[in-house]
Amino acid sequence: MDMQAVLDRIHDEAQPLLGQGRVASYIPELAKVPLQRFGMAVSMLDGRLYTVGDAREDFSIQSVSKLFSLTLAFQLVGDALWERVGREPSGTAFNSLVQLETEQGKPRNPFLNAGALVVTDVLSTRFVQPEMALVEFLRRLSGNAGLQYDDAVARSELATGSRNRAMGHFMHSFGNLKNPVDAVIEAYCRHCAIRMNCVDLARAVGFLANGGVSPVGGEQVLDASSAKRLSALMLTCGTYDAAGDFAYRVGIPAKSGVGGGIVAHIPRTLGVCVWSPRLEHTGNSLAGSFALERFTSLIGQSLF
Amino acid sequence: MDMQAVLDRIHDEAQPLLGQGRVASYIPELAKVPLQRFGMAVSMLDGRLYTVGDAREDFSIQSVSKLFSLTLAFQLVGDALWERVGREPSGTAFNSLVQLETEQGKPRNPFLNAGALVVTDVLSTRFVQPEMALVEFLRRLSGNAGLQYDDAVARSELATGSRNRAMGHFMHSFGNLKNPVDAVIEAYCRHCAIRMNCVDLARAVGFLANGGVSPVGGEQVLDASSAKRLSALMLTCGTYDAAGDFAYRVGIPAKSGVGGGIVAHIPRTLGVCVWSPRLEHTGNSLAGSFALERFTSLIGQSLF
Amino acid sequence: MDMQAVLDRIHDEAQPLLGQGRVASYIPELAKVPLQRFGMAVSMLDGRLYTVGDAREDFSIQSVSKLFSLTLAFQLVGDALWERVGREPSGTAFNSLVQLETEQGKPRNPFLNAGALVVTDVLSTRFVQPEMALVEFLRRLSGNAGLQYDDAVARSELATGSRNRAMGHFMHSFGNLKNPVDAVIEAYCRHCAIRMNCVDLARAVGFLANGGVSPVGGEQVLDASSAKRLSALMLTCGTYDAAGDFAYRVGIPAKSGVGGGIVAHIPRTLGVCVWSPRLEHTGNSLAGSFALERFTSLIGQSLF
Amino acid sequence: MDMQAVLDRIHDEAQPLLGQGRVASYIPELAKVPLQRFGMAVSMLDGRLYTVGDAREDFSIQSVSKLFSLTLAFQLVGDALWERVGREPSGTAFNSLVQLETEQGKPRNPFLNAGALVVTDVLSTRFVQPEMALVEFLRRLSGNAGLQYDDAVARSELATGSRNRAMGHFMHSFGNLKNPVDAVIEAYCRHCAIRMNCVDLARAVGFLANGGVSPVGGEQVLDASSAKRLSALMLTCGTYDAAGDFAYRVGIPAKSGVGGGIVAHIPRTLGVCVWSPRLEHTGNSLAGSFALERFTSLIGQSLF
Repeated sequence: MDMQAVLDRIHDEAQPLLGQGRVASYIPELAKVPLQRFGMAVSMLDGRLYTVGDAREDFSIQSVSKLFSLTLAFQLVGDALWERVGREPSGTAFNSLVQLETEQGKPRNPFLNAGALVVTDVLSTRFVQPEMALVEFLRRLSGNAGLQYDDAVARSELATGSRNRAMGHFMHSFGNLKNPVDAVIEAYCRHCAIRMNCVDLARAVGFLANGGVSPVGGEQVLDASSAKRLSALMLTCGTYDAAGDFAYRVGIPAKSGVGGGIVAHIPRTLGVCVWSPRLEHTGNSLAGSFALERFTSLIGQSLF
Repeated sequence: MDMQAVLDRIHDEAQPLLGQGRVASYIPELAKVPLQRFGMAVSMLDGRLYTVGDAREDFSIQSVSKLFSLTLAFQLVGDALWERVGREPSGTAFNSLVQLETEQGKPRNPFLNAGALVVTDVLSTRFVQPEMALVEFLRRLSGNAGLQYDDAVARSELATGSRNRAMGHFMHSFGNLKNPVDAVIEAYCRHCAIRMNCVDLARAVGFLANGGVSPVGGEQVLDASSAKRLSALMLTCGTYDAAGDFAYRVGIPAKSGVGGGIVAHIPRTLGVCVWSPRLEHTGNSLAGSFALERFTSLIGQSLF
Repeated sequence: MDMQAVLDRIHDEAQPLLGQGRVASYIPELAKVPLQRFGMAVSMLDGRLYTVGDAREDFSIQSVSKLFSLTLAFQLVGDALWERVGREPSGTAFNSLVQLETEQGKPRNPFLNAGALVVTDVLSTRFVQPEMALVEFLRRLSGNAGLQYDDAVARSELATGSRNRAMGHFMHSFGNLKNPVDAVIEAYCRHCAIRMNCVDLARAVGFLANGGVSPVGGEQVLDASSAKRLSALMLTCGTYDAAGDFAYRVGIPAKSGVGGGIVAHIPRTLGVCVWSPRLEHTGNSLAGSFALERFTSLIGQSLF
Repeated sequence: MDMQAVLDRIHDEAQPLLGQGRVASYIPELAKVPLQRFGMAVSMLDGRLYTVGDAREDFSIQSVSKLFSLTLAFQLVGDALWERVGREPSGTAFNSLVQLETEQGKPRNPFLNAGALVVTDVLSTRFVQPEMALVEFLRRLSGNAGLQYDDAVARSELATGSRNRAMGHFMHSFGNLKNPVDAVIEAYCRHCAIRMNCVDLARAVGFLANGGVSPVGGEQVLDASSAKRLSALMLTCGTYDAAGDFAYRVGIPAKSGVGGGIVAHIPRTLGVCVWSPRLEHTGNSLAGSFALERFTSLIGQSLF
């Protein structure tokens, strides 16, 4: 089956699922999104692009941003980052403070909210406008110069972000946040509020499949070894507390967000992004998880 | 042995202990206090006063304030308070967030930092200046019109209060803090920074031993039943995570603070306060705990 | 109001509660007990006895036995016991293993199942038949030479005691159980299965109110100081994870069991026992808790 | 560099590490093993075999057995297994009971001790001698008909296995262990005590790299999809609480044991086993972890 046929078939199979699952309601602005949506894009490393459904409709990338802010911070400080944030799956909810207390303010991995706050703190030390640093990075990676964050969503998230604020002050109490907590939280909320579509993200993630080189602009984003290592981290920690199950069912590195997007890649082959707003109880897109499971099965490729 | 002889003997016996233990260092201003201090005061319900050592030297009351802010909040809202804070010992450190997560933002008791923040939130809803409301309450209870909080200590605590701020935002995320977190934290830090001496506090606690009526001014602070109940709470929860041990060894209701003060009372008999700055690992004054254990033993009275 | 009138009134007031609450169902034999029962007995230190309702009907004392096995172990090893079991309220369920793991196999207090297993281990080291040692101790304390444990209940509890067995092996792995785990569990289940009535228990607990001397036989069970200390422990830890609430509402030292019995005492005055099989969610007798709260209120005495 | 040269180089580089790390001492028999050992074997799917050092010296496979007992149980009950054990990394130590309590007796994954006990329970329901079922399975997979478990090690582990016994009874209390706990523990200890060498294990793991078909005997052990899925589980959960770090550094599916062995594979390519007895604090072989990190780096292959 050719790639377009694969996407068309997944699109058909996913239709009955679009009414299932719930949308994230804790950010009021996010709850306003139209729900009956499904888009998917595959960007081959040779430049060919395949799309289906709402692949060009923008959505809030939310925690998908954590993959790219991590990459940017890793460019800046390299392995020194791991002194401040771990590389292990958490075994607890994405916004839990329990683990932070047990492990003295060091988050288990950079894809938890607490870990992403440390990452944002690293960016805040280096950049005057850490939110625009990430926006510009994603513009280069995706080739879409018009990317921007949605200020209404960012402000909605800020207004309801007591839990993130609690984490920030908690890590500050352990000395693991260096910049003013309010400023770090604000930058973090803006990162989450960046709007992109499936095509943008399928292209942007390509560098991880391509030995660290962006297939869009040719930029050497990371060395090949680091690209492999961040991919391993996606596999073990990228889909909240369901990473083990996701690896079991789908078998490729992925990072999801509560906006309903999931980016993933197959090393040496392609970048892929799927979007559908309704979520499983794990916080991952319900139709999106299904789509990726079918995808690796239909094309007969996974890591294993 | 008469009461003065009891105090003199305890004072003698305590001398070798004054060099042991450590002072709370997380609040820089507190660490500046002179360490070789020991004072004790007993205020009989009939007005007789006994003192020894540094009983008239002011110190930072710190968590001893939690007993009086609780009394004030209980005057305002009565048993409705228990919908927002529990009455059980915690089994965890005084500044732990773990329990808060497990129990959905409801602190186990009002003598934990988190519980005292809820209490302060209640006062913040009712009073424009919740810090002065407590200062004035303590002026009336002690008969010392000159009481004040120490602004340098309050600011020092505010500057280092990331853990309390984390708790505040965390409870706010569960809807259990109603006022702006920063304002509540500020009032709380000023409560902790009130300066009093042993004589002031031995008098101030008298109402709990006296059926709710202040032996100083005759004010009906609480009804008799409520006075008993708050005393029970002191016994089970008043000395951090050492309350069981303290009840076992001392056997009377007490509330301690990291400034080295401990207030206690014997129902229908007396109020007592001891102060010595160096602390046990539990956060209670080392010489102070010893002094109260000797006190109930020498006068042959405890609850049991 | 005289004592008999107090008991009669409580008996009347308790009637509407007898249909509420649930019976412990995890021990099948226990679930067979008749439910519409309420008995209460007060044994004054001078020997006068007051009873109401089903005060002479035997019931399974269950965790009430922990108070007496503790006393027996304390006679044997004294304060050395506290190296193996703590004196702090737990903040967790009576059968939780979490705390044991955090604190390296040392139970928080002797009234948790894990703590009572350590106590039983102490008795198992000293006595060939630790179950009969406790039975005989209770015969002396109550003056009832016919006491016995119910073998059917003991075997029912043994058959369903996987959680206790897990605790036993867990503590054994930390070196805090010395005898074979199965033997300790068996003795423990027989302790729980002892049958007594309210009159027996009100008399048996009297030594704690009487400076350590049994008012029944005159035996010096403990020295006066130790009697006070175990009483303090009852107050802070005796009623499962509701000890703080119980102290707040009732205000006297008490120990409850899932068989529906609660023993308590007022120092220098009386021993009391109430029994009613249906339980609150905390595991304490529902009508029994109500009865003791009314009791201290009507006679105008509590510790505080 | 050809494969033999790769192994020779790793062997040289590993020498300085052989004196570092500690041996597992909680099983006395295991502590008797000679420490200065290092062996490694690579078994290509086409049958070529490469070895270095002590690749033919037998050792106790310990938790490496969990991979094969899981495979056997999965053959029997398929996806129904996941109703009794999860597929998520644990975030806690391999022998923690905390997670079991929080999640009602369902272990997080089959590579934790608790999870392997559930797996062994499945085998105990099906086989009269579950230990011999696994031994015979491994004889077929490795082509070594002489494999056996070491009874002295099994008995040593049984004698010191209080923690495992605690877990067994704990899961039994939740209904998640069906057979008598003692029998399951005994079979489990015998599984751990199986003796194999690097050559045996490199061959035995080959079926996971080969679409589920054993490259030794041609047996279809699992269907291709299941082989992929168990491999994903190895990657996310196979190396204790260091699985994230291991995936990050090494990047291939692996399962380790406290006997110092680690098996791993590269899909469609090879099976590999390394052995060196001294361990990192995570419980994984120190020189073994280093060797596999160098291996994927030198041959330029990992999953990512």
